[in-house]
Amino acid sequence: MNIDTEVRQVKRLLLNCDMGESFGNWRMGQDAKVMPFIDCANIACGYHAGDPGTMRRTVALALEHRVAIGAHPAYPDLMGFGRRSMACSSDEIRDLLHYQIGALDGICKVLGGRVAYVKPHGALYNDMMANPDILRTVLEAVAAFDSGLPLMLMATADDSAAQALGDEVGVPLWFEAFADRGYTASGHLMSRRLPNAVHHDPALVVEQALRLAKGEALVADDGSDVRLNASTLCVHGDNDGSVAAVRQIRQALDALEQA
Amino acid sequence: MNIDTEVRQVKRLLLNCDMGESFGNWRMGQDAKVMPFIDCANIACGYHAGDPGTMRRTVALALEHRVAIGAHPAYPDLMGFGRRSMACSSDEIRDLLHYQIGALDGICKVLGGRVAYVKPHGALYNDMMANPDILRTVLEAVAAFDSGLPLMLMATADDSAAQALGDEVGVPLWFEAFADRGYTASGHLMSRRLPNAVHHDPALVVEQALRLAKGEALVADDGSDVRLNASTLCVHGDNDGSVAAVRQIRQALDALEQA
Amino acid sequence: MNIDTEVRQVKRLLLNCDMGESFGNWRMGQDAKVMPFIDCANIACGYHAGDPGTMRRTVALALEHRVAIGAHPAYPDLMGFGRRSMACSSDEIRDLLHYQIGALDGICKVLGGRVAYVKPHGALYNDMMANPDILRTVLEAVAAFDSGLPLMLMATADDSAAQALGDEVGVPLWFEAFADRGYTASGHLMSRRLPNAVHHDPALVVEQALRLAKGEALVADDGSDVRLNASTLCVHGDNDGSVAAVRQIRQALDALEQA
Amino acid sequence: MNIDTEVRQVKRLLLNCDMGESFGNWRMGQDAKVMPFIDCANIACGYHAGDPGTMRRTVALALEHRVAIGAHPAYPDLMGFGRRSMACSSDEIRDLLHYQIGALDGICKVLGGRVAYVKPHGALYNDMMANPDILRTVLEAVAAFDSGLPLMLMATADDSAAQALGDEVGVPLWFEAFADRGYTASGHLMSRRLPNAVHHDPALVVEQALRLAKGEALVADDGSDVRLNASTLCVHGDNDGSVAAVRQIRQALDALEQA
Repeated sequence: MNIDTEVRQVKRLLLNCDMGESFGNWRMGQDAKVMPFIDCANIACGYHAGDPGTMRRTVALALEHRVAIGAHPAYPDLMGFGRRSMACSSDEIRDLLHYQIGALDGICKVLGGRVAYVKPHGALYNDMMANPDILRTVLEAVAAFDSGLPLMLMATADDSAAQALGDEVGVPLWFEAFADRGYTASGHLMSRRLPNAVHHDPALVVEQALRLAKGEALVADDGSDVRLNASTLCVHGDNDGSVAAVRQIRQALDALEQA
Repeated sequence: MNIDTEVRQVKRLLLNCDMGESFGNWRMGQDAKVMPFIDCANIACGYHAGDPGTMRRTVALALEHRVAIGAHPAYPDLMGFGRRSMACSSDEIRDLLHYQIGALDGICKVLGGRVAYVKPHGALYNDMMANPDILRTVLEAVAAFDSGLPLMLMATADDSAAQALGDEVGVPLWFEAFADRGYTASGHLMSRRLPNAVHHDPALVVEQALRLAKGEALVADDGSDVRLNASTLCVHGDNDGSVAAVRQIRQALDALEQA
Repeated sequence: MNIDTEVRQVKRLLLNCDMGESFGNWRMGQDAKVMPFIDCANIACGYHAGDPGTMRRTVALALEHRVAIGAHPAYPDLMGFGRRSMACSSDEIRDLLHYQIGALDGICKVLGGRVAYVKPHGALYNDMMANPDILRTVLEAVAAFDSGLPLMLMATADDSAAQALGDEVGVPLWFEAFADRGYTASGHLMSRRLPNAVHHDPALVVEQALRLAKGEALVADDGSDVRLNASTLCVHGDNDGSVAAVRQIRQALDALEQA
Repeated sequence: MNIDTEVRQVKRLLLNCDMGESFGNWRMGQDAKVMPFIDCANIACGYHAGDPGTMRRTVALALEHRVAIGAHPAYPDLMGFGRRSMACSSDEIRDLLHYQIGALDGICKVLGGRVAYVKPHGALYNDMMANPDILRTVLEAVAAFDSGLPLMLMATADDSAAQALGDEVGVPLWFEAFADRGYTASGHLMSRRLPNAVHHDPALVVEQALRLAKGEALVADDGSDVRLNASTLCVHGDNDGSVAAVRQIRQALDALEQA
């Protein structure tokens, strides 16, 4: 599939966005508005959001806009939107990944697409970043599903441990950064409880996106330089404001690449 | 895959059985005991039974015994075990089929197998047999998932309408009969509320299995002959008694084929 | 509790509205905006919408505005928002009603309130109106939970059968009508697929509300007069437009009562 | 209700047992066999087990045998049977307790009973014992539901911190011990991974029950004495063997009390 091939080869900073987070009668996100501006859609797989109908519509929208489809699996927690850590065993995590990735891949297959990468959602993502055993479980599950399928995870100042694990298991890693979040010196996101943890000024967001695209260092919360080696930027389609921000980031990155 | 190929070509009466109907901590069925004697495992896909771990264990067991794996999708009703009809739209039925078949196929893929056929479960199965619109929806969904994937459905005295629909949509049909149930003259199952609806005598069950295998008519509840053109027999692994019955049926059919 | 007492005694046309239909991270409805204008809040109980936190917040909001709290139980179908009929047995319906009413009543009790009436939701409501056996099951379940607890159901041109059943079981009935829907000559709602089934002109909606309050006949879709003996009007808080309509209805009814 | 009153006043070692852990079509536990021998039934409330029908049947069985009914609420995790810790906020825990206790109390009310105490299940129980903030949340939730409602929790060698918290919040505490488990010197259960963590010899189980009833010390895993001040003993009704053990414990305790 050419979308997938293209995604795996391009060097530019891809924009990824959580999509398909409606459920049944409940609507969430401006998927149709933001899809034209992104490269990678992280699509919910039914465990934290995304019923089968929502999944089908979201996959169709992604294919229409030639956007790569990522499985966005989560802990089984609709009520908590997958944001509450659950003490799952390694076997349980592996199996729930395969179930959810398989379900999305089945829907993709019907529509002529396929799952091009995996990005765990919410608490599962956080647990994977905090716990090397869980990262290994996720990597092995991704490799078992499809050899060569990439995993999207968070870029930090030092990605060497994650990279070594990815290399060992044989899973390509797509590191993501955030244009709208402040960073610590170690390249971790500042806690949302701190002032300046989230950038609300669109100009600041675009500037940070450009710095990341150019491989320039950001200024961490302690004033030091922090360098992130990201291949993708996580953007948000929650509301009209965030969609406008994505459009601005897209335009700035496009201008940069054509310069 | 040779299992799949074999199943699609054989002419003998295949034994199919609902499997993987445990959920989380709850156990149901004697899967390990009955698997050696059957040809086709209808594996629950999470909507009426079957969490991801149960699905993985059941798929592994089926592969170990070279048993064909069937997706056994259902209405989303864990509490009712998929036995309560739900007024789902055609789109909803299509999407929930793709989700569940995909999830099982993902788990199969990881273990080196694949979904070889589809048999809807419980109320969805009954609704499909009672309503041609739902049968068409199911057939189209199966064909969209995988061209050539067979659908398992109930044999009756006159399968021509179902066969015409299957031919039109391009889905091979596997008609199933029951060795332990009484039939009406139209080849439908007698209501369980009637006497003699269920055969409890093992000799009678084996005899009916042999008649079906030889293409002989059964005696309907009104004394008339009823002929079923079945390619598979639905058996049960609920308890030790039903497992023993499956073994007897298996032996009788094997003896017949070698005769 | 004085809210409850007041509600059971007043003669004016009460405004009832479905509330608390958010779930987890998903928001639905303008509950805070519409609560000041209504008399009765039909609060979702977790089976089609309404997680425990949403229920608590909605109950607190209702108590703050001295609005009577109604249990709004449904079939167990989050994915279908309780709008898909499910073939539940009489025992299953009774038990799911008690579970949901009890859960809401527990949350009310903690906050100093109580469930003042019951209004089934969605497909359960429709099934209850279409099937006297289900209506009897619901009535008996409501009476068993709390002797004297009223049931809210739909007014039609002839409520005598429902009233006879309510009298037999000993459940007070609150019949509801709609100001924004066209009616047939038998006092049933016109199908939404027909033109003029839904009134979009606010003036027309207010006029119908006033006619219902004054006990005047409406003009049915065939031009005949249809008279509904309603004690409550179902209004909607889905969006800003519907909230504005509720405010206008409230003002018109208040003006009528003070005239 | 005299059952409740009796339970709150008696001094003898009460036998408590998890009950009602079936769900839909899945059966778990020998409830009918063990109910005659116990004093307190911890009844699942739908979040880890126990659909409304199972709850009703279990409540009816408890009332028939004059057994006190305890709410057995859990994290919302059917798939994991409530045994996986979930990172719920204090508000979430309070609300899910009220929802579940309320649901069970509603069903009790219909049958002429009431919830007489609360015992959190599985991971919620463990988290409550490990984390004083969660214990406080649980205590406050129980007190808010019903002033004077007792909480059942685990006895250890030093219950003073828990008792102080219970006194502060105003919740009576029922400490439970186990007759079939080995203890550490601090009065905590030995890890199941250690040898001798579980007593399989019925004579040993009965002996430990009698020691606990007489207020005698047990021998901890390090050989030291450990004294538990328990008012109730947790027993199991999973299978015929455990039911037989419960009967033996019951007989031994009855003989002791009559001595």
